[in-house]
Amino acid sequence: MAKTKYVYFFGNGSAEGNAKMKELLGGKGANLAEMTNLGIPVPPGFTISTEVCEAYYQNNKKYPAGLDAELKENLKKLEELMGKKLGDADDPLLVSVRSGAAASMPGMMDTILNLGLNDKAVEGLVKKTGNPRFAWDAYRRFIQMFGNVAKGVAHDVFEHILESAKKAKKVEEDTDLDAADLKKIVESYQKAYEKALGEKFPQDPMKQLQASVDAVFGSWNNPRAIKYRSLNNIKNLKGTAVNVQSMVFGNFGEGSGTGVCFTRDPSTGKNEFYGEYLMNAQGEDVVAGIRTPMAINTLKRQNRKIYEQLVQYKNKLEKHYRDIQDIEFTIQQGELFILQTRNAKRTGPAAVKAAVDMAKEKLISHEEAVGRVTPDQIDQLLHPMIDPVHRKTATVLAKGLNASPGAAVGRIVFTAEEAEAWAVRGEKVLLVRRETSPEDIGGMAVAEGILTSTGGMTSHAAVVARGMGAPCVAGCKAVSISGNNMKVGNKTYKEGDWITIDGSTGEVFEGNLGLVTPKITSDLSTFLKWADEIRMAAVRKGMKNKGFVVRTNADKPEDAKVARAFGAEGIGLCRTEHMFFGEKELIAFQEMIVAEDLAARKKALSKLLPYQKKDFKGIFEAMKGLPVTIRLLDPPLHEFVPKTPAETKELAGKLGVNAAVLKRKIDGLHEMNPMLGHRGCRLGVTYPEIYDMQVEAIVGAACEVAKKGVKVFPEIMIPLIGTYRELEMLKANAEAVAEKVLATQKTKVKYTIGTMIEIPRAALTADEVARYADFFSFGTNDLTQMTFGYSRDDVGSFVPEYIEKELLEHDPFQSLDQTGVGQLIALAVEKGRSVKPELKMGICGEHGGDPASIEFCYRANLDYVSCSPYRVPIARLAAAQAVIANRS
Amino acid sequence: MAKTKYVYFFGNGSAEGNAKMKELLGGKGANLAEMTNLGIPVPPGFTISTEVCEAYYQNNKKYPAGLDAELKENLKKLEELMGKKLGDADDPLLVSVRSGAAASMPGMMDTILNLGLNDKAVEGLVKKTGNPRFAWDAYRRFIQMFGNVAKGVAHDVFEHILESAKKAKKVEEDTDLDAADLKKIVESYQKAYEKALGEKFPQDPMKQLQASVDAVFGSWNNPRAIKYRSLNNIKNLKGTAVNVQSMVFGNFGEGSGTGVCFTRDPSTGKNEFYGEYLMNAQGEDVVAGIRTPMAINTLKRQNRKIYEQLVQYKNKLEKHYRDIQDIEFTIQQGELFILQTRNAKRTGPAAVKAAVDMAKEKLISHEEAVGRVTPDQIDQLLHPMIDPVHRKTATVLAKGLNASPGAAVGRIVFTAEEAEAWAVRGEKVLLVRRETSPEDIGGMAVAEGILTSTGGMTSHAAVVARGMGAPCVAGCKAVSISGNNMKVGNKTYKEGDWITIDGSTGEVFEGNLGLVTPKITSDLSTFLKWADEIRMAAVRKGMKNKGFVVRTNADKPEDAKVARAFGAEGIGLCRTEHMFFGEKELIAFQEMIVAEDLAARKKALSKLLPYQKKDFKGIFEAMKGLPVTIRLLDPPLHEFVPKTPAETKELAGKLGVNAAVLKRKIDGLHEMNPMLGHRGCRLGVTYPEIYDMQVEAIVGAACEVAKKGVKVFPEIMIPLIGTYRELEMLKANAEAVAEKVLATQKTKVKYTIGTMIEIPRAALTADEVARYADFFSFGTNDLTQMTFGYSRDDVGSFVPEYIEKELLEHDPFQSLDQTGVGQLIALAVEKGRSVKPELKMGICGEHGGDPASIEFCYRANLDYVSCSPYRVPIARLAAAQAVIANRS
Repeated sequence: MAKTKYVYFFGNGSAEGNAKMKELLGGKGANLAEMTNLGIPVPPGFTISTEVCEAYYQNNKKYPAGLDAELKENLKKLEELMGKKLGDADDPLLVSVRSGAAASMPGMMDTILNLGLNDKAVEGLVKKTGNPRFAWDAYRRFIQMFGNVAKGVAHDVFEHILESAKKAKKVEEDTDLDAADLKKIVESYQKAYEKALGEKFPQDPMKQLQASVDAVFGSWNNPRAIKYRSLNNIKNLKGTAVNVQSMVFGNFGEGSGTGVCFTRDPSTGKNEFYGEYLMNAQGEDVVAGIRTPMAINTLKRQNRKIYEQLVQYKNKLEKHYRDIQDIEFTIQQGELFILQTRNAKRTGPAAVKAAVDMAKEKLISHEEAVGRVTPDQIDQLLHPMIDPVHRKTATVLAKGLNASPGAAVGRIVFTAEEAEAWAVRGEKVLLVRRETSPEDIGGMAVAEGILTSTGGMTSHAAVVARGMGAPCVAGCKAVSISGNNMKVGNKTYKEGDWITIDGSTGEVFEGNLGLVTPKITSDLSTFLKWADEIRMAAVRKGMKNKGFVVRTNADKPEDAKVARAFGAEGIGLCRTEHMFFGEKELIAFQEMIVAEDLAARKKALSKLLPYQKKDFKGIFEAMKGLPVTIRLLDPPLHEFVPKTPAETKELAGKLGVNAAVLKRKIDGLHEMNPMLGHRGCRLGVTYPEIYDMQVEAIVGAACEVAKKGVKVFPEIMIPLIGTYRELEMLKANAEAVAEKVLATQKTKVKYTIGTMIEIPRAALTADEVARYADFFSFGTNDLTQMTFGYSRDDVGSFVPEYIEKELLEHDPFQSLDQTGVGQLIALAVEKGRSVKPELKMGICGEHGGDPASIEFCYRANLDYVSCSPYRVPIARLAAAQAVIANRS
Repeated sequence: MAKTKYVYFFGNGSAEGNAKMKELLGGKGANLAEMTNLGIPVPPGFTISTEVCEAYYQNNKKYPAGLDAELKENLKKLEELMGKKLGDADDPLLVSVRSGAAASMPGMMDTILNLGLNDKAVEGLVKKTGNPRFAWDAYRRFIQMFGNVAKGVAHDVFEHILESAKKAKKVEEDTDLDAADLKKIVESYQKAYEKALGEKFPQDPMKQLQASVDAVFGSWNNPRAIKYRSLNNIKNLKGTAVNVQSMVFGNFGEGSGTGVCFTRDPSTGKNEFYGEYLMNAQGEDVVAGIRTPMAINTLKRQNRKIYEQLVQYKNKLEKHYRDIQDIEFTIQQGELFILQTRNAKRTGPAAVKAAVDMAKEKLISHEEAVGRVTPDQIDQLLHPMIDPVHRKTATVLAKGLNASPGAAVGRIVFTAEEAEAWAVRGEKVLLVRRETSPEDIGGMAVAEGILTSTGGMTSHAAVVARGMGAPCVAGCKAVSISGNNMKVGNKTYKEGDWITIDGSTGEVFEGNLGLVTPKITSDLSTFLKWADEIRMAAVRKGMKNKGFVVRTNADKPEDAKVARAFGAEGIGLCRTEHMFFGEKELIAFQEMIVAEDLAARKKALSKLLPYQKKDFKGIFEAMKGLPVTIRLLDPPLHEFVPKTPAETKELAGKLGVNAAVLKRKIDGLHEMNPMLGHRGCRLGVTYPEIYDMQVEAIVGAACEVAKKGVKVFPEIMIPLIGTYRELEMLKANAEAVAEKVLATQKTKVKYTIGTMIEIPRAALTADEVARYADFFSFGTNDLTQMTFGYSRDDVGSFVPEYIEKELLEHDPFQSLDQTGVGQLIALAVEKGRSVKPELKMGICGEHGGDPASIEFCYRANLDYVSCSPYRVPIARLAAAQAVIANRS
């Protein structure tokens, strides 16, 4: 049997490991090896493998035999390569000892720097650098870090000594202490160390190293590391590796320096070398912002040789890693070292631009390009953002739910009427309300954005705002509204005051921060075209269509047009009730609601028919050639009647009925739990004439449009089915009306009739329901409400606390609960297709625009997702990524 | 191959068929054969088998070859046996032709009587009976029946002739027409027949017979018969048989008569011969009530021989059929014929008495006795009933839901306050409200019964009334209440008016009808003991306990005692919130709700602790030795606070807080859909101190009671779990509190912690939830609400219409929806036991008292059902019957 190898060396242009050995060497160790092999000047060192960690824990915290010898051998090799020795009195080698597992666990495990310093070596460092302050500060830091991290001496012990020294000298900053001060502190640290541990601070660098290696392996199982792995579902790792690497310093003097650079501009994505650096500084100085770093171009003038080396290395690294690199470098006494490279974080526009450019440069494939942009980054491209300059300095006033993305600036108004009045005067307004109701639609339409103090992600305000593409912050509990005032903490804002909201983050700011509107580039369309190619070529087992379609939820022709421009391939949900909120429509509908008998109801409905038909025609024309799913009336009737006595009286006047009678009628509509009440197909059962009118309007509109030569594919959707018998009856009713219209119009239009699956019972009995359905559309908003027993209007009182206490991983109205609700969907898909193998299925709940939910829908073999117009591009990308992620 | 036999003869003491041949001969034919074989004097005849019907339809409505010959042969045999001939001019044989399938389909198919009469035979009948009127009337009836039933002549055609004849003679009743009149009518009938059909009325009895047989077979597939079979799920029958039987007449003269008798008294169950008869009468005369029938004992004096024969036959029939028989008999010219025997319909008390008596007489086994009583019949024994004498003549004013069984009489009051005020004065009151709320509890407790105009079977009024054992009619839509008036149709009732309600049927009557209270006999306890023996000996695969336990839902010590007396074997649901409605308790709880911070909440809760503890002690003592499941707080907090400004102001005064601040606080609790809101364990998460107090009270009470030597088995139930993490957290909290109490009290009490499965998601993820649960209790009320998406408070607006239109088979809140909700239960049982094979499971929803649901629970392998105290005996019986029905 071959002897197990425990330690892997890297340095001088070659390494024993490489990037593929992450599992054995950890991410950090593997990448240091990889860079070394590439000829990148990485400070040399060696990695103790994760197998040692595994053995250490399996063998009661004892190291495998042979490790010690390998360690010494590698150390010797390192000293030879560096021409320095640990603890040397003239030119000591200093090393860092760092953790590094196969999965990233930032900050969870231990790190020790400057190892190798002792009372002799510190003098060697003084000699070598000619900088006693630097040397003593490094020694001080090492004792503190070693004492605390490797030996468990309380942090306070050292901090207290440091603070006392500063107090004694009456200074505030560590930098105000000189070499002599630091030397004294080192003495005090050593005493404190001895007092705390009953042993002297070890002068033997090998002992220092051994204890540090112990500490890093020990930190693998510290509570926060265990918690982190559990939370992030990191499993089946052997343990951490330990990286021992020679230290380099950017603060050795004026010939030294440190910096960060990017292979392309991470803000714009442009292929321009971008970065910042500081001479005679440590990495933390660049980040801390005390000194102003210099642009990387300056280095070209300052030290052309180093600059050219850096350009050479960054080009090599980007080419090797095939993505924008974020590179840390240090110049030590005129010599360039690369400390780290990683894929750069970037803005949405940058992500798209770089992905498209790199694919065009043939650096990556189209598919890789599609994988390089997150759906959230696409979202950034579609909405105005707060001016980043002003945002930096602005303080967040309050934080609510990020209910509809994009930022908005406007003057506060507290009613929809005021919103409309101010808008007429050309004012930009922001509508602020406890919650909105359908009567506020007019005001919402003219407002720049909406802020509500109650309600969740699927409250009226949130849903309507998303539909309109208007920014919205909902359920912002810190905001308390009374009359014409809005209070946040102890600040009061009145009508007309300026505020700024960011619907992408849920933040609310005081004043007008100004907006910037990202431009939609041709890069984005190229990018989405590539995504669509992947999405539409997806092959799924047992599916009729290969592709995975993205539709939109749109209620009006204008919305349909927007969505189509964004790439929607049909309408998955057209809510007919929103069409009743026009002034004339509403009064006719109210007349229908309060009608005393069938004849009166039919008369009122006949007034509505032409309005509905006109809307449907507009939508069919906008979506010509694409399917349009139209949902018949869903909300309970009481949503359409006045709530206050004054409004009731007004309506009575308009309708010419007795106000008291009207009030009794309206009171009779009241429900304890409207969500679970007389709505959806239940209205279709008790008032068949309503659905009859709607079907007549749909099929009538389809015929008229078809006669013009426009291809129409109406899909009539019956909501809230709980038993197959409801669908059986209502489908028969609808067919009878549709056939009558077709006969009268003497036109052939192919229409289908399907149902929403949004009641748990419908999912459970999907095999029965499927017999009467041409399609299923999962209404995951209501399905989530009923599966969880959560009213989306009321969850604000406990769901935020649930998420905080980790009782819920996320808001189930934002991202589909795959365990519970998803189980019902999977069951319904299986049961439905067991009866009708080619049953078309899609999702039309709010989840249709959420990337994780879209992936679930793909895996659940749904034919399509449908989301609000402004999320269509996001869904197109998420769908393509789902296809890629699920290739077997 | 043996020749198929189509026709089966019966008569003269022997028959070719028997009772076991129902499938072939139909129920009627098989029983006529059986009685004949027993030596019972059944009028002879023969049965054409169901196979003929099957062949008839399979072969395009043609009869099998050979049938005709068999028919003639049997007819000849019948004529010989009777010594009469069809159509004979001196002494004609008359026969009936009746349908009879294997399953009873009463009134769905055709019947023809008096067949064989023609212009000659009618004269023979005149001769033989000496009663021309009788003969001509028989002929008239035959033509009418034959014309209508066999030939499809409209009923009106004949009725019109008859009416004209009466008009011409200026008489009102058929009986006022004499033989001459009837003879003329026969002539008119024959003319009308010929006019309608273009052929003469057939004089040939064979043609009459053939056409009648055709008609009966034809009626098998008439629309109403098809509908009936579909509705009653009657499947896989060959068809109907046809019974041709010689006619006997009780109206041949004074030596003739007819009657109905019961082998035991069907009202009391006493083993006393009971019956009524009329001489010179037809069966319909006994039923019609025009002449007053005589008690069967009179026959003993009037015709001792016939009487003794009848006694002999009835004894033989009861012994043979082993149940109370309901026997129809006819005496024709001094000769006794038995026309029919069947198991008698009986009252609840009679069912129990007869079952117990017959088992004691060794006529039937204990198990058969248990099968002889329906759960509804037991229900009759437990509640007052409206005096049957007065009920007979009373008209039903309105009908609502039969929400809580038993009848009640009282004077109308419209508020709980008035109810209490009148009750103090010693008045019997009936509380009439739109709906009740927790604040009405006091008034409900003193009322004789409750009538509400809205709300369903699980509305507040219904649930509380059942818990109290008070009769309740709920959701009585015909009743409209405004102020101090109640309107039904155009009648108005005011406070103080007497009304009577029947909560077992949902009926409402005007006035005081008087009540009778059935006595609970020792027979009932014997009967239930036998049921329990069967129930507790049940062996089910994979179940820990053999028996199938019946627990009760009880919130107070008094309820617990009642339930225990009724045989409850534990408490399945003790709702702690009902304990908060005492005056002092409520104010402390309200103080807790409006408290500004944790300290103030804890202070208020500490006031509640002793009350809760006292209640728990009472319950533990009442249920000593039996398990008690206590549910922690479930309803939303707004149920406990005032609703009107006046009440709010009053409470503010009591609590010493600012009324405006209190109002804001209360408004903040408002929810759109409280059913899906901040309640159940969600309160336990956001206000852990509430559950902590309750657990402290439960375990503290258990310790104190245990110290007295009483065995206590507290089971702490956490409601409304939707994710396992909720249970994980709340269980840990509860255990911490419980262990602290046990340590302080230095007592050992074994307690368990489990959860309600009432949220669909909890059922879907039962494997996850089970890991943290000692037991599951299915809360099928809420589970039904969420699985269907029905608010039980609001379903009144559409569920009745759904049932009427057959969109629902029954109200899913009354009887469990086994297809949908049951599927979730079965899934949860399977998933739960997959993780914890011995997980105790039961049901505590209202369905626990419904027999069909109890059977489902048994099949689903639940350990117990739990129901309101007054339904415990019903559940014990239903459970035993479930055991019997599911023996493999």
